[in-house]
Amino acid sequence: MQFKISEELIEKIKFLIEERNDEELLLHLEDVHHADIAEILTELNLEEATYLVKLLNSEQTSVALMELEEGLRERILENLSPREIANELTQMDTDDAADIISELSPELQQNVIAEIDDEEHADHIVELLRYDEDSAGGLMAKELVKVNENWSVTGCMTEMRKQAENVTRVHSIYVVDDKNKLKGRLSLKDLLTAPSHANISDVYIPQVDYVTVHTEGEEVARIMQKYDLEAIPVVDEMGRLVGRITIDDILDFVREEAEKDYQMAAGISEDVEADDNLFKQTRARLPWLLIGMFGGLGAASIISGFQTILTDYKELLIFVPLIQATAGNVGVQSSAIVVQGLANDTLKGNMLSRLFKEFGLGLINGLAIALIVFVISFYFFHTSITESLSIGIALISVIVIAALIGTFIPILLDKNNIDPAVATGPFITTSNDVFGILTYFLIAKAILGF
Amino acid sequence: MQFKISEELIEKIKFLIEERNDEELLLHLEDVHHADIAEILTELNLEEATYLVKLLNSEQTSVALMELEEGLRERILENLSPREIANELTQMDTDDAADIISELSPELQQNVIAEIDDEEHADHIVELLRYDEDSAGGLMAKELVKVNENWSVTGCMTEMRKQAENVTRVHSIYVVDDKNKLKGRLSLKDLLTAPSHANISDVYIPQVDYVTVHTEGEEVARIMQKYDLEAIPVVDEMGRLVGRITIDDILDFVREEAEKDYQMAAGISEDVEADDNLFKQTRARLPWLLIGMFGGLGAASIISGFQTILTDYKELLIFVPLIQATAGNVGVQSSAIVVQGLANDTLKGNMLSRLFKEFGLGLINGLAIALIVFVISFYFFHTSITESLSIGIALISVIVIAALIGTFIPILLDKNNIDPAVATGPFITTSNDVFGILTYFLIAKAILGF
Repeated sequence: MQFKISEELIEKIKFLIEERNDEELLLHLEDVHHADIAEILTELNLEEATYLVKLLNSEQTSVALMELEEGLRERILENLSPREIANELTQMDTDDAADIISELSPELQQNVIAEIDDEEHADHIVELLRYDEDSAGGLMAKELVKVNENWSVTGCMTEMRKQAENVTRVHSIYVVDDKNKLKGRLSLKDLLTAPSHANISDVYIPQVDYVTVHTEGEEVARIMQKYDLEAIPVVDEMGRLVGRITIDDILDFVREEAEKDYQMAAGISEDVEADDNLFKQTRARLPWLLIGMFGGLGAASIISGFQTILTDYKELLIFVPLIQATAGNVGVQSSAIVVQGLANDTLKGNMLSRLFKEFGLGLINGLAIALIVFVISFYFFHTSITESLSIGIALISVIVIAALIGTFIPILLDKNNIDPAVATGPFITTSNDVFGILTYFLIAKAILGF
Repeated sequence: MQFKISEELIEKIKFLIEERNDEELLLHLEDVHHADIAEILTELNLEEATYLVKLLNSEQTSVALMELEEGLRERILENLSPREIANELTQMDTDDAADIISELSPELQQNVIAEIDDEEHADHIVELLRYDEDSAGGLMAKELVKVNENWSVTGCMTEMRKQAENVTRVHSIYVVDDKNKLKGRLSLKDLLTAPSHANISDVYIPQVDYVTVHTEGEEVARIMQKYDLEAIPVVDEMGRLVGRITIDDILDFVREEAEKDYQMAAGISEDVEADDNLFKQTRARLPWLLIGMFGGLGAASIISGFQTILTDYKELLIFVPLIQATAGNVGVQSSAIVVQGLANDTLKGNMLSRLFKEFGLGLINGLAIALIVFVISFYFFHTSITESLSIGIALISVIVIAALIGTFIPILLDKNNIDPAVATGPFITTSNDVFGILTYFLIAKAILGF
């Protein structure tokens, strides 16, 4: 069955909320999947959504809240008391609870944590808050099933059933020693088929893939994808098992990162969607347009600075768009490839060899394009030989430099712990535009001798 | 434990291959994870890689082959006989086998399929080949566990154990009727805790999320992410259960799609990496640079066509980069947002309201930028009032039109079943450049009256 949120259903729900008809609402919504509840919430206004969240039980709404877009979730939570928020958090897995709490103001965080009755749950959430949100520590949940290597198989089953209650999906059972250090893993199947008198230490698999709390989220995704894992244990600096990341969380992370990188490359400064209001979209888009504008004004000053070209070599000006577009395209290509290489950890070889390679690449592509343009500008636009030559040589230089800049800026950013994807957007196209025109005119000046 | 491929290991393996020391090689490699085997294969040249694939048993190499980049895999397979390829395919899950076979020439496909001894496996592969590779049918595998609703729980267990042998991970057991139509699902836990005298029809859950064979891959990813599914059954047009897609395959798909979109937006025409050789990179990048070049030449013809500007209104020319950059940035922003909206299926509202919204957005952003530029061009670049006015009005027009084009081209492409991401690359920046300059000069002509 596929549940579709129809217009009629939304209308009906809005109507029932207005009537405060709690009984009917619960009847309609109690069997609805939490992801669909989330979709319904996005179709309601803030008051209606808040009403529904307070009405439905926390088990449904807690997960629905996770599915909401951050802005809407924040506004709904603002209307709930710390006690009500704590109730939602108690129902969630620790990683989701930590994510939500981190969105609240520090003051509200304190109040909410104080209202969580389950002290162990609160302690776990507080622990997770310490980690960087894009690291394994920030992505992991404390819910997992672990057994001590010294236990017997039978003794283990009881303990496991108890732990498994809280765990939505048990993929592997982790085996730890007395100091809680990760030693290996077991599958449910292994456990069920093991001889009942055996000890865990006889049957577990001592090879287990793991990550540490500081491993970057993209690295975790890469490892899980490479080894086809559905969950991966997380250990701390002392090798102690502290959490687990499941593949559904990594899928969320991968999709979010892809969207963020994509938007950054397009010069959109925050998570915005096509249906957001004018104000929100403007706020996300105008900053980058302004950066591009300043770049354009910079280019304008450069051109107006070369008065000789404006008076005596006007034909050169008609190729300014060509130079600009080429510099931009080459820069974007280079940076996109490097940014992907950094994300997939496939960037090998040292800096010097990379420098030579990009130089060579710029040269080859540059020569190809410069040759075509030289011929076309000479025969079709009737520029003189020396003018055509300056256009051609400028193109080669601009392409080579743009390729080098596009390659090294992301690497530089990455080495300084800044997201290299920043370099792929209007930032790099703007700077390439400006220096491209400067290079063009300087070369023209040198060749034409003015 | 984390397995790292060291330089020494690679050197050692190369040495052992040269020596044809099969015994030592097997000793070193038999416990190595297939994903790491794949990494080792990429570090070897073609001959060494082929040697290793023929030496190691198919269970290891089949999965390693899947992890390889397509080009390398093709070259290795070219060196294997149809029989040897068939042996690899027999070890693989049907979805992977189908993917690999589809990369071969039709003639070779025939020969390989003929060599697959397991006729059921061959039949499944042939079936999967019929589907579009990015649809649910193309992504699914035939391996799954299903039970008939009329069976008893105990009778079911035996059948299940038999089926589960071939299935790497059993997430849900699917329940079908006599016609193989999907009725619902069961978890292993449900089955284990059911009373032994019960029938399947008493215990299974009649709600089950599913997709049809024609559902687009991105839609499948969206549904699996929304409902936190780890596997989803696929049904045909008659509702019959024909396959299953697991979350690890969807994670692969999502990451590949993100890379493809990203590269398309950067104007890179095939899957290329930072460490590929010069020829491969040039082949992927030059086509788009040529498109940009033709756009630049188009812009050059336009400018040279407006001789009056070149002679009498030279100051207007200094703002050409500004106009071009702004048109490009706005177009890229709009198209990126729309393409993401299409991919996430969050584009609501009809065309007309979208038209008005983009128009309004263009107007607001345009006015902001035009105002700043008007002031700066008048006070700093000393353009006349009418010149400054034409620059300002041209900016507003260009931004509005770029926003509209950037919004509607992807939607148009999508409606005609072309990947809308094509519209986000140099294609749209180039066309925006050209019409942007044209608009600028036409407006200048109108306002300045020449």
